Amino acid sequence: MYSFKNDYSEGAHPRLLEALGTCNFEQAEGYGLDLHTQAAVAVLKEKLQNDEVQIHFLSGGTQTNLTALAAFLRPHEAAVAAQSGHIFVHETGAIEATGHKVLSVSSPGGKVSPAAVEAMVLSHGDEHMVKPRLLYLSQPTEIGTLYSASELQELKKLCERLDLYLYVDGARLGSALCAPGNDVDLPVLCRLTDAFYIGGTKNGALLGEALVIVKEELKKEFRYQMKQKGALLAKGQVLGVQFQELFRDGLYFELAQRANTLAARLRQAVAEAGYSLLAPTVTNQVFPILPNSVIAKLEEEFSFYVWEAVDASHSAIRLVTSWASDEAAVDAFATALKAGASR
Amino acid sequence: MYSFKNDYSEGAHPRLLEALGTCNFEQAEGYGLDLHTQAAVAVLKEKLQNDEVQIHFLSGGTQTNLTALAAFLRPHEAAVAAQSGHIFVHETGAIEATGHKVLSVSSPGGKVSPAAVEAMVLSHGDEHMVKPRLLYLSQPTEIGTLYSASELQELKKLCERLDLYLYVDGARLGSALCAPGNDVDLPVLCRLTDAFYIGGTKNGALLGEALVIVKEELKKEFRYQMKQKGALLAKGQVLGVQFQELFRDGLYFELAQRANTLAARLRQAVAEAGYSLLAPTVTNQVFPILPNSVIAKLEEEFSFYVWEAVDASHSAIRLVTSWASDEAAVDAFATALKAGASR
Amino acid sequence: MYSFKNDYSEGAHPRLLEALGTCNFEQAEGYGLDLHTQAAVAVLKEKLQNDEVQIHFLSGGTQTNLTALAAFLRPHEAAVAAQSGHIFVHETGAIEATGHKVLSVSSPGGKVSPAAVEAMVLSHGDEHMVKPRLLYLSQPTEIGTLYSASELQELKKLCERLDLYLYVDGARLGSALCAPGNDVDLPVLCRLTDAFYIGGTKNGALLGEALVIVKEELKKEFRYQMKQKGALLAKGQVLGVQFQELFRDGLYFELAQRANTLAARLRQAVAEAGYSLLAPTVTNQVFPILPNSVIAKLEEEFSFYVWEAVDASHSAIRLVTSWASDEAAVDAFATALKAGASR
Amino acid sequence: MYSFKNDYSEGAHPRLLEALGTCNFEQAEGYGLDLHTQAAVAVLKEKLQNDEVQIHFLSGGTQTNLTALAAFLRPHEAAVAAQSGHIFVHETGAIEATGHKVLSVSSPGGKVSPAAVEAMVLSHGDEHMVKPRLLYLSQPTEIGTLYSASELQELKKLCERLDLYLYVDGARLGSALCAPGNDVDLPVLCRLTDAFYIGGTKNGALLGEALVIVKEELKKEFRYQMKQKGALLAKGQVLGVQFQELFRDGLYFELAQRANTLAARLRQAVAEAGYSLLAPTVTNQVFPILPNSVIAKLEEEFSFYVWEAVDASHSAIRLVTSWASDEAAVDAFATALKAGASR
Repeated sequence: MYSFKNDYSEGAHPRLLEALGTCNFEQAEGYGLDLHTQAAVAVLKEKLQNDEVQIHFLSGGTQTNLTALAAFLRPHEAAVAAQSGHIFVHETGAIEATGHKVLSVSSPGGKVSPAAVEAMVLSHGDEHMVKPRLLYLSQPTEIGTLYSASELQELKKLCERLDLYLYVDGARLGSALCAPGNDVDLPVLCRLTDAFYIGGTKNGALLGEALVIVKEELKKEFRYQMKQKGALLAKGQVLGVQFQELFRDGLYFELAQRANTLAARLRQAVAEAGYSLLAPTVTNQVFPILPNSVIAKLEEEFSFYVWEAVDASHSAIRLVTSWASDEAAVDAFATALKAGASR
Repeated sequence: MYSFKNDYSEGAHPRLLEALGTCNFEQAEGYGLDLHTQAAVAVLKEKLQNDEVQIHFLSGGTQTNLTALAAFLRPHEAAVAAQSGHIFVHETGAIEATGHKVLSVSSPGGKVSPAAVEAMVLSHGDEHMVKPRLLYLSQPTEIGTLYSASELQELKKLCERLDLYLYVDGARLGSALCAPGNDVDLPVLCRLTDAFYIGGTKNGALLGEALVIVKEELKKEFRYQMKQKGALLAKGQVLGVQFQELFRDGLYFELAQRANTLAARLRQAVAEAGYSLLAPTVTNQVFPILPNSVIAKLEEEFSFYVWEAVDASHSAIRLVTSWASDEAAVDAFATALKAGASR
Repeated sequence: MYSFKNDYSEGAHPRLLEALGTCNFEQAEGYGLDLHTQAAVAVLKEKLQNDEVQIHFLSGGTQTNLTALAAFLRPHEAAVAAQSGHIFVHETGAIEATGHKVLSVSSPGGKVSPAAVEAMVLSHGDEHMVKPRLLYLSQPTEIGTLYSASELQELKKLCERLDLYLYVDGARLGSALCAPGNDVDLPVLCRLTDAFYIGGTKNGALLGEALVIVKEELKKEFRYQMKQKGALLAKGQVLGVQFQELFRDGLYFELAQRANTLAARLRQAVAEAGYSLLAPTVTNQVFPILPNSVIAKLEEEFSFYVWEAVDASHSAIRLVTSWASDEAAVDAFATALKAGASR
Repeated sequence: MYSFKNDYSEGAHPRLLEALGTCNFEQAEGYGLDLHTQAAVAVLKEKLQNDEVQIHFLSGGTQTNLTALAAFLRPHEAAVAAQSGHIFVHETGAIEATGHKVLSVSSPGGKVSPAAVEAMVLSHGDEHMVKPRLLYLSQPTEIGTLYSASELQELKKLCERLDLYLYVDGARLGSALCAPGNDVDLPVLCRLTDAFYIGGTKNGALLGEALVIVKEELKKEFRYQMKQKGALLAKGQVLGVQFQELFRDGLYFELAQRANTLAARLRQAVAEAGYSLLAPTVTNQVFPILPNSVIAKLEEEFSFYVWEAVDASHSAIRLVTSWASDEAAVDAFATALKAGASR
């Protein structure tokens, strides 16, 4: 049974394990003050073409989101997110547990529109309601779609006008950065956001996310927040070493590219088999709409999530590829799909 | 410069890295639902001689403490800890950030006495004060001392009488379990506590703590709390694999034993050099009281914390050994110490 | 300029002020332990026909909601409310500030349907999402509509099946209890809810709400929660005296009845003038849909909220009556409305 | 049985009740935006000789403290208070419930010393500990003692040097302002603190405290915080009217003066009876140390708190006077005390 359920089934890319092994007996400073973490910060700043940002390594996405938003917001301030946004739906109220409401706007195609954000903010006019203060986006979105640079630019302008911070959840940022047609690279993210994170867990690391804080006023005493939220690993070098290895050459991008290529192959198979997609994704997630009978058949050999019912006899499923996905399994899935379609 | 600053300078024991490598390309269920985590739970239950406990793996000590206490306590309930307790002093208000006061009692030798706990609880009589509801201990304590089984038994009885949960922070539990004279083994901890954790980070793992919940009423929906606090790693197998390896034979104990042995050698050197100790520890921390001039000399070759000033010309330093400590470095320190003493 | 903006413009019913004056120099126990508070509890239990409930007096609605929900819910548990629900929209994130997410369901006519609640709960299946644990209703709703006893019964059954507490916000409960056709009286509320509050501020008191906790497990140590949230008034008798006076005979109901009667007169004027209503309310709120030109004219003599635009030239306004509303002003409004209509 | 237990046994000064009655049927804007609240702010600013401060009315002391501190502090920041401080001991963890640790320093005579505060702050040096950010004082202290202007000046300088806000809890501020020898008047408080509150509940009001925010950066969007914490009363005029009446002439000071005078008479009786005091207070609290047999005798006629045991046969009791205390009762107590002494 081969799994396309997610992009965190396997461990780390072998080069990362090797790097961890190589420096295993070095004596490192604790809590992220070690030389590898410093080197990872340096190499990331190069890729970001920005020497002023502050970079912190945390162990997972929910932890990063909650630590950042709790640090950035005053008690009465709220985040605005897509209705499908991870912090709104899938983090067990982690943001609310730090005291902040998450407001949601409709998100066709997984994305929020400037108009929806503006309407939400303008509907909050006095002290009887929370004050929207941060726009939370995901790049790619929960369903694998992308914001273009001009869309992001427009949202950034809106945020400046409405006094909102712009924060981007990049759990799968690698896949976005390497997607065909993407024009939001790391320097663009530095220019157009106030903070964002570069996901490692879903692109080659055992664990680890790199939070990049761009806006000066958000940097102050951030390590206190990390410690308080349980996000300051004693052996911080474990994260530093992995990010150093992912970014010292182009490994991070190679891995994401591979995931995208395999996803594209799945999308092509879907098209060739005559099926449609729930959303036109270009990243490592594919959402084919299939007859339930075909899904049942596929489930005999493959595991994946059934995403949502589309009609009485069809559902969308979610297929996720990663740097570690087996090419042969992708081909086998394509074959099985076409066989199912032709029965 | 060799460091005796702490027991988390190095990475993981090579067997753990190897185990991570071996299963690296297995496709695992996410979020701690994988087979390695299940195996680690099974092997731990054997060592605990208790099949009813619930076991969760989290990435660090602060994270474990805050997730557990936030889950266990109602809003008006408080923890009682030693004045030197980690949650009281060194976690940046992590417990308070979840809404709970930490009350402190004096802690000579790092330990709390039943009398002090009882007095604290009895001084809280009505709704104008928090309700003490959980006793937080560390085994070993912050300064490396130990509770005996009879002391723990007495505290447990007190907790039952006063309706307190008893929680033990075991960041360095390995060292305690293997200390000479220790009579608090894992089954005893299961009998005498309501929850405790077995530290991995400081005894051979890259990261990871195993939280053991003994009391039935504390188990309910604990995974929700982990997710909410950012403590549910996507690649949960990273923790499972390591604990499986640490406990499938006696590796965890061997590593702790080695740390203790090297600490004992340092203690002996202190005695031989004619110096005294701040506290009579039997675990992997040693607190010699040295002339400041000797400290300055030692600092040329070794790094360690100066713990506290004892008088105008003497201070206590803290030396920590671990499974990874270099025997030769320990001997070199002993030699340097004696040389310093005889000058 | 006469105001129909709300039902808290004036002070207290004169009988309450008189009662406060009469006992002003009695020496009362502090913090709600006084004899008047006890008497108020006793008289309320009579009206509730329930001697087992626990009753607490708090100073306002938001304070009551946040204190209750924070006390009732564990950290990962969430409330479910109407999209128009007060805790979802108009309390500045007070519930989230205590750590809990508020989930919203659509609320045509201000009410939640069992189907919508069930769908929301069933869409929350595992620890990656909050656990819905409490259904929050308002009686009357934000727009003045009512749940019938059978609707409440159905919701209660659903809550039992889904393991939800049922909590009713009764900021304007007086008006609901006295509305024509209402069949949810105080004893019914005791049978069909786990907790609810009886609003005083909007029905004759200077300030004060009476929280009734029905479910045994929710009663424990509630006064601790009140103190912690700043809701335990030193001079608790101020609340006790007022509720004693409101309920010792039928004053509370008389006042609500008067508010309803005046609202009905306004509704009749709306009908006679040939206008429609946004919602068919039977309580002390009236939402006529008027031409914007008529609204502008009315605003010269009366103040009220413009609730929402209905089309390019019409808006709904909100008129609120209370025990203190001036009958002559109501008639003047009716006259002005009809005059506007006939121009 | 006459009570000297506290200064909140009785209701409001009759002039306040009368003022509430006079404006009872005025239609006021809700939530503290009414004309009486504005007038109260204006008259207070005059007394403060400061037109730049921001003034808010809240219903009680705990509510004021928690709303202010939650608004002023970032998540990792902590308050420093006396070990006997109200927020440290007697508010059921209200501050911690908003996420902030309260650090305590020893407080001989109820007061904190600059040296103790500085030592506490300096012991907090990095992100593993909270960051002390606000010094909480009470004037008068919990045991009725006073800070002089020069003491306050010294603490203010220290706070500026250490980057701490200085906040003063004035639950009994009236008594302090009118105490013999006091040199900290309202303008001095404006100069030497960043925020403080003027207690109404314990000096003539039914309920109500006036929070004065001096420091510009602490003012922003404070009403949001009030609403979120349940501290924005719908009928805000109830507080405004009372403070307007208390301060439009010298009533507030007259009432406090009367309480002080009666307390002084009790102190004199203590001296004449040959007993000593636990602390040399000059405000409306008196702490005589009496033989337990005398206490038992006095308890037959009077109620008061037994504060603490002093030795096997003596205890300190607490007597509190207020604007409403009965002069004859004070004299009766004095007589009983002397009679007890002479038996």
